[in-house]
Amino acid sequence: MSARVTVAFAMAPEARERVFPPARTAQFEEVADVRGFLTELESPEALRVLADVDVLVTGWGAPFVDAAVLDAAPRLRAVLHAAGTVKPYVADEVLRRGVRVSSAAEANAVPVAEYTVAMIVLANKKVLPIAARYQESRREFDVEQAFPGLGNFGQRVGIVGASKIGRKVVELLRPYELEVVAYDPYLTEADAAGLGVERLGLDELLSTSDVVSVHAPSLPSTRHLLDARGIGLMRAGSTLVNTARGEIVDQDALTARVVAGDLFAILDVTTPWVLDDDHPLYAHDHALLTPHIAGSLGVELGRLAAVVLEELQRLVHGRPLGYEIQADQMAITA
Amino acid sequence: MSARVTVAFAMAPEARERVFPPARTAQFEEVADVRGFLTELESPEALRVLADVDVLVTGWGAPFVDAAVLDAAPRLRAVLHAAGTVKPYVADEVLRRGVRVSSAAEANAVPVAEYTVAMIVLANKKVLPIAARYQESRREFDVEQAFPGLGNFGQRVGIVGASKIGRKVVELLRPYELEVVAYDPYLTEADAAGLGVERLGLDELLSTSDVVSVHAPSLPSTRHLLDARGIGLMRAGSTLVNTARGEIVDQDALTARVVAGDLFAILDVTTPWVLDDDHPLYAHDHALLTPHIAGSLGVELGRLAAVVLEELQRLVHGRPLGYEIQADQMAITA
Repeated sequence: MSARVTVAFAMAPEARERVFPPARTAQFEEVADVRGFLTELESPEALRVLADVDVLVTGWGAPFVDAAVLDAAPRLRAVLHAAGTVKPYVADEVLRRGVRVSSAAEANAVPVAEYTVAMIVLANKKVLPIAARYQESRREFDVEQAFPGLGNFGQRVGIVGASKIGRKVVELLRPYELEVVAYDPYLTEADAAGLGVERLGLDELLSTSDVVSVHAPSLPSTRHLLDARGIGLMRAGSTLVNTARGEIVDQDALTARVVAGDLFAILDVTTPWVLDDDHPLYAHDHALLTPHIAGSLGVELGRLAAVVLEELQRLVHGRPLGYEIQADQMAITA
Repeated sequence: MSARVTVAFAMAPEARERVFPPARTAQFEEVADVRGFLTELESPEALRVLADVDVLVTGWGAPFVDAAVLDAAPRLRAVLHAAGTVKPYVADEVLRRGVRVSSAAEANAVPVAEYTVAMIVLANKKVLPIAARYQESRREFDVEQAFPGLGNFGQRVGIVGASKIGRKVVELLRPYELEVVAYDPYLTEADAAGLGVERLGLDELLSTSDVVSVHAPSLPSTRHLLDARGIGLMRAGSTLVNTARGEIVDQDALTARVVAGDLFAILDVTTPWVLDDDHPLYAHDHALLTPHIAGSLGVELGRLAAVVLEELQRLVHGRPLGYEIQADQMAITA
């Protein structure tokens, strides 16, 4: 019988501890021989492990897998990444030399999409501003008069960026009676039809949506994709949700409209990463700031480990990987 | 050709204005002859309208439809109710005399279920307590340490009451990787299997769920269904969501645990309807109070009108009603 597949883990100790606690790695040991837990791929000890390894499981803070690593790991067949984007961790060389790469980006997209959908529903209904006013007044008040047009029925939701996360948001919104539109220069007409969304230009999306949710990658070309002019197009009373990157939005323009009282903002990301103490968005009833929590956290890390384990099982049994990365995808995803 | 079906509307003026604005009633006029808008069913003018009417459309604040009304409306074939429960508006007599009754309770359940699902997702992730702490500290902090076990993956959601709303919550949660359990004395094993939930006793549901959401009717038998003992069973760090009626929960017991810091509460309903100014739940970071907004509001009222219009079209074309009430349902729903 053939020898068992050998696996090594390579990532920051904190990532290993959070994503692959002992109960999880025990599941890997049922499927393969676990040869080690590495934090770098250069030391004599690491090179000794690499010499025999078939599969590398990487994660947050993993050392870069480049040509030198490939040379040291002649048996390497696959890199399974237990986080989102693989680009910072894997050289293009890896794919070119026929090593397969798979990422848990789909699994990592799930909690962000779930957070986003919850916020879209609350935003259309103006739940958080209403709660803030109720806490303040401690009286019943006419919410329909205070927030004209509130509610979730036929409202337009504009998705900026049909990324993995953007697409999951669209899927999760399917049972809701909302009209979902999307802007993405890479989204084809056929693709949009398959997703069940209307493609719109960015200006039209911004000027007609009740909630705009940002799911574009952070690239030089997407910096201030929503610039002051774009923010200016948004409808009075509409909400911007950003779980992607602060840099994609002109935050000063957004802040000015929120402070003026005619725009709402739900921001899991800002520029800088933590705003200055005296930033007006902290205390405004029309804004909710969360400290970069939309992604996988807590028990959600178990989903990343579970997905990588499934990939390993597929590899061991010669089945197609579920989330294999193709070379042309590396260029357009962040 | 047969004469067109005749319709009269009977409800409080405010309900008519909010649910059936002119653009909506124009759609009814395409399907039937609209004979009047009534607020009572006793005056000579109302009796004149009733004498010729085939269908009554009722809504919030509608006058009670009883034997006297039936006597005055010999052609009456159906009462279509543009709101949730019909019990306060329609005598049992109506069904017994063969007049069909339909309600928009399904449509009215939608926004409550949507609010609930959004809150369940936020509750598992501890989004609002984290946002409150972030607003306070204006520093990044270790959210996993502050809120152990946070996240949406494999968490248990306990649905108390497999009512229309409870069932819609279960449906909307299907794409989420959560374990949904339900307590309802009327839920059969087959019914639970069809819904995809496990049936649990109330004590076990309370003591093992990460979020408990209340969807029971308010009846004498459900007063303090979650009593002090039941609230005491809830896991430290779990969340109670109540969009049903305040009376179902022992609010003092709940408040004590929230104030002690080991339970979270998201309450769209309280006892009394508006809490006293100095109630501790208003200002506590572990509680969110909203002023009875989970139900249909704003644009969501259009869904009620749309459902009633569809029922009228079915009636006119001799098709089965979508939401017809059977006599035995009247007894167990609130």
